[in-house]
Amino acid sequence: MSIRMEPIAIVHTDAKELPRQWTFSDVEGTLVIDDRYLEGVKDIEAGQRIVVIFHFHRSPAFDASYLTQKPHHRKKRLGVFSIRSPIRPNPIGVSVLEVLEVKDNIIRVKGVDMLDGTPVLDIKPHIEG
Amino acid sequence: MSIRMEPIAIVHTDAKELPRQWTFSDVEGTLVIDDRYLEGVKDIEAGQRIVVIFHFHRSPAFDASYLTQKPHHRKKRLGVFSIRSPIRPNPIGVSVLEVLEVKDNIIRVKGVDMLDGTPVLDIKPHIEG
Repeated sequence: MSIRMEPIAIVHTDAKELPRQWTFSDVEGTLVIDDRYLEGVKDIEAGQRIVVIFHFHRSPAFDASYLTQKPHHRKKRLGVFSIRSPIRPNPIGVSVLEVLEVKDNIIRVKGVDMLDGTPVLDIKPHIEG
Repeated sequence: MSIRMEPIAIVHTDAKELPRQWTFSDVEGTLVIDDRYLEGVKDIEAGQRIVVIFHFHRSPAFDASYLTQKPHHRKKRLGVFSIRSPIRPNPIGVSVLEVLEVKDNIIRVKGVDMLDGTPVLDIKPHIEG
């Protein structure tokens, strides 16, 4: 069984270097929403936090050698499902971003830890818990 | 551009009714990991919380009529990216579950808000923030 996804937006950012975790990111950028989905973002407002689900589009193809990986800040290899590496069986990332402004199909956000050009698959409201 | 995903696990649960949000769920279930990915779960431990990314496999195909939807507890229609409806352009769900036990390829979890048979696409460590 295979599941197909299409981008609903693209991330734009000038940042050349990326923080290792979004919790440390002050980077700003924009999510440019595909016109077909414009009505779907009408209730997103400045000041709120959103969960952004995206495609790690630059990751190499996954194979068994990536089932464990050594994170930068750890000494031993850990199972891929216990780390946030972009190299995963399904290369999906999840980040929580702060909305700075919404104008037409452009959402300006803070906390960006994606590369410029990253395809966005979904946006959800952030619920604390 | 289209992105293809394959399930890495399947959710099993006896619960016939589902809570509207995982924050209210006490439902237990299991994630049965595909044997190919067994080594990837070796560092998941009882007591921790995991982020589970899954496919809303029973959702109808998305069309423009779903760009806004009326949630049960709200009076007006909201943009799809401001609600947690399973009917979305890319039918991806995200839940935070508590790990009760890990035994071979079976992770017993609490807080399940997925249907029995739901395909899991990814598991990540939960980081507060």
